[in-house]
Amino acid sequence: MERIQTVAVGTHVGERVRVAGWLHSLRRLGGVSFLVLRDGRGIIQAIAESEAELGPLQDGSLGVESIIAIEGIVVSEPQAPGGIELRHLQIEVIVPVTEVPPISLNKRKISANIGTVLDHAVVTNRHLARRAILRLAAGAMAGFRSVLTARDFTEIQTPKIVAAATESGANVFKLDYFGRPAFLAQSPQFYKQNMVGVFERVFEVGPVFRAEPHDTTRHINEYVSLDAEFGFIENHFTVMAVLRDVIAGILTTFNEQYHAELEILAVQMPTVPEQIPHIFFPEAQELIYQQHGVDVRGEPDLSPQDERWLGEWARQEFGSDFLFVTGYPMRKRPFYTYPDPAHPAYSNSFDLLFRGTELVTGGQRLHLYSDYLTALERAKLPVEPFEAYLEAFRYGMPPHGGFAIGLERLLMQLTGVPNVKLATTFPRDLTRLTP
Amino acid sequence: MERIQTVAVGTHVGERVRVAGWLHSLRRLGGVSFLVLRDGRGIIQAIAESEAELGPLQDGSLGVESIIAIEGIVVSEPQAPGGIELRHLQIEVIVPVTEVPPISLNKRKISANIGTVLDHAVVTNRHLARRAILRLAAGAMAGFRSVLTARDFTEIQTPKIVAAATESGANVFKLDYFGRPAFLAQSPQFYKQNMVGVFERVFEVGPVFRAEPHDTTRHINEYVSLDAEFGFIENHFTVMAVLRDVIAGILTTFNEQYHAELEILAVQMPTVPEQIPHIFFPEAQELIYQQHGVDVRGEPDLSPQDERWLGEWARQEFGSDFLFVTGYPMRKRPFYTYPDPAHPAYSNSFDLLFRGTELVTGGQRLHLYSDYLTALERAKLPVEPFEAYLEAFRYGMPPHGGFAIGLERLLMQLTGVPNVKLATTFPRDLTRLTP
Repeated sequence: MERIQTVAVGTHVGERVRVAGWLHSLRRLGGVSFLVLRDGRGIIQAIAESEAELGPLQDGSLGVESIIAIEGIVVSEPQAPGGIELRHLQIEVIVPVTEVPPISLNKRKISANIGTVLDHAVVTNRHLARRAILRLAAGAMAGFRSVLTARDFTEIQTPKIVAAATESGANVFKLDYFGRPAFLAQSPQFYKQNMVGVFERVFEVGPVFRAEPHDTTRHINEYVSLDAEFGFIENHFTVMAVLRDVIAGILTTFNEQYHAELEILAVQMPTVPEQIPHIFFPEAQELIYQQHGVDVRGEPDLSPQDERWLGEWARQEFGSDFLFVTGYPMRKRPFYTYPDPAHPAYSNSFDLLFRGTELVTGGQRLHLYSDYLTALERAKLPVEPFEAYLEAFRYGMPPHGGFAIGLERLLMQLTGVPNVKLATTFPRDLTRLTP
Repeated sequence: MERIQTVAVGTHVGERVRVAGWLHSLRRLGGVSFLVLRDGRGIIQAIAESEAELGPLQDGSLGVESIIAIEGIVVSEPQAPGGIELRHLQIEVIVPVTEVPPISLNKRKISANIGTVLDHAVVTNRHLARRAILRLAAGAMAGFRSVLTARDFTEIQTPKIVAAATESGANVFKLDYFGRPAFLAQSPQFYKQNMVGVFERVFEVGPVFRAEPHDTTRHINEYVSLDAEFGFIENHFTVMAVLRDVIAGILTTFNEQYHAELEILAVQMPTVPEQIPHIFFPEAQELIYQQHGVDVRGEPDLSPQDERWLGEWARQEFGSDFLFVTGYPMRKRPFYTYPDPAHPAYSNSFDLLFRGTELVTGGQRLHLYSDYLTALERAKLPVEPFEAYLEAFRYGMPPHGGFAIGLERLLMQLTGVPNVKLATTFPRDLTRLTP
């Protein structure tokens, strides 16, 4: 008999079907046993009405996570998870398991501490809540790509081993490249800009590496960056409009195709306004001063508390979970940032805040070769390490800009997991290199 | 006036439109000038019937790759590339360029040597033939993903910084991870297997790193791997069936959406038979002996010449550009390979040959923890570095297998470029770390 997926069982009420997967749980209550089988996408309950019906599970020697196949009749049962269950079972063991997993995979909540969860990620990723987040990662990548592909962006893959640190010498991993020093890319920034000269509009989904020696709930040292960059823009507002549609597209993908995962994680889904409200950086500081009496005017950046206040304001004033802060001071932005023509101390850049926390950074970049030479000089950076990158600007680059979304941070902020390490398959942190 | 893309100009015959992009070429013949403008996806010819119509290009100071906007009337002209051209022009310069590019970007063929092409890749990637290949890379990724997503595979991203070499200690890049030694992942093999325990069916598109100290036309040290892995298989033939559909899906994507690129590159598109023919490894050696008198029987692997002979045979015998060779000897395959139950010296593995060259490797993997312990012992490998990976097998892993397609190799073999370095944006080789 052909195996079907548990998520398809509901369309076979009254029929005999075969499912296969992991023995998620087994409760024996008197003569009746409740089994739950988990496969790659869902779970299904099965009822054995006698000891004999348990077949190979009867003697209790096989534990959870054993891989089994169950044949049974599909019955509507409002009490059962998903409203259906299997009865009149025939059970077959495919791979027996006798060891007890390092955490309970069949409890609703994970009670183990995060260290245990991450140490055993090859197994704990099977937990329904863990895997729901990892499935949302797939959805976010798909949503990101579909919005941009529909807008004629071309997907690229750029090198992760680079000769020079991308943006500064700090926080890069060094490696030995056939006897020469090399680095792991902190971002695809330079390459995606260069590829604007080829395709005009590009995006990349790939790993980036940050050797930040911090161990906080918001740091991982390798993460997935959803990068976009495109040419022939007016200014950073053109970029913000595309980003708005990308975020909306990701959320639509979740709503349409990841309902089960959102439910498992009890995600409160935001809506994205047609126009995300925006506020100019110095005006945001003025607002904080007026509303909270804290004088942050003149500070070069926003603190987490500032961001929370602005998030509250956006919610109260516009009913929006999202807020663009535009025009961050030039001195805190990388050398390739385009200055605001009207206020050259400020930049044509932005952060997108989501519920009071920074989610995305982006902006317009310089596009004239001569401007790059000036900017590098001003930043006291040598030209030489950037020469290959800068060559593109000697041969015509249009006004352009882009943004980068940290996949794990997006998932953390959306699902409310307490640590970004829980928003990726196998995190890398100060002490964690395995699994 | 709103800018439109050059590929959309054909739908506006008789209308005045605005296009913008790079000045691809400019020929002045007496009073008439032929301009070609290139944007992110196409090119368009424009005719200036007087010197005055050239506007800012009139004095000859601006060179190719200048970024310009042209407004003009769309006219049908069978002689023009694409059958249309612009007339009655108004030209505006957005970014002037005066330097001469390192290679001719507007010649049909690139005459510069490969070193020059790669040294200046940030500019040479703009050449229509170069960018056509890089566009096909996007198409291959999209085709790969769409076939697998439709079959319920979940996309994953796994770490590229790892504690232990993936398959062996050789040919890995070493890096300093906060004072500890670490490596760049040679493949996502172990992680994708582990994630079969979570989602059953997974794929990944990401970089892999090989510190092979070879400088050949077939080697790059960082490439993009299209990886798939899935559970509940019968044996390697289940994997081969999915791979067949993936290859067919990629080629269909090219045929349907990348016609312009295939034409620029003059690609001879293969068809994929419903059933790709297959031959068992020792029988392939016997065939070579019978047909060519060369006795390779007992060799542990196929030579490039052997593969060419088998490719010819598949073409003659089955009219197929593709051939599966199954059952490579266990001693040449990695420790996680599943042996052929009927002939344990051979494996449930395969290579897919395309026109006589290996394109894809895959197979069934061991799924029982005890089999891994035996296999590691047989391979004289210690258990300890693999312990985290092996934990998944202690808690139930179904029979599973998968494959990995090298993106650049696929593009090289399909398009016939003479060097795999030409099939990627910015190649990494023994001496090349930049751009």
